[in-house]
Amino acid sequence: MTKFQAEIDVMPKKEILDPQGKAVSGSMKNLGLSEIENVRIGKHITLEIEAENEQVAHEKVDQACKSLLANLIMESYNFEIKAL
Amino acid sequence: MTKFQAEIDVMPKKEILDPQGKAVSGSMKNLGLSEIENVRIGKHITLEIEAENEQVAHEKVDQACKSLLANLIMESYNFEIKAL
Repeated sequence: MTKFQAEIDVMPKKEILDPQGKAVSGSMKNLGLSEIENVRIGKHITLEIEAENEQVAHEKVDQACKSLLANLIMESYNFEIKAL
Repeated sequence: MTKFQAEIDVMPKKEILDPQGKAVSGSMKNLGLSEIENVRIGKHITLEIEAENEQVAHEKVDQACKSLLANLIMESYNFEIKAL
């Protein structure tokens, strides 16, 4: 068994309004950073997984994303896996 | 002026307890994914910025992280910038 680390990004889908990101975009102006726009805020998740090989680890992480970490109606996800 | 996109990760510092991540680690067992552990949950932020060059964009994004996006007492951040 090898230990892998996964880095997962879960983001609100493009078609979906991101009120938190909108609020932060507005605040940038008050901070004198009006060059910054289109802020979108999602989740960054790191985790460790033990698996026989990278393919199995990939499948398990995909399953975790689908069943728990991302809401597929509103969010999309992508991830990278590396051996530890 | 060039447009850049920044991808920012804001994570709870290692020394700091991450209750959301702990809860998700626990839920993995109930989902039959007990191989997954050490889940940590932070924020993933994307934004667009107009700047003269990459160095200026880098400084502005760093300033945005320090003053708004990350709480430096509890969180650490890192980011990448690419031209659009």
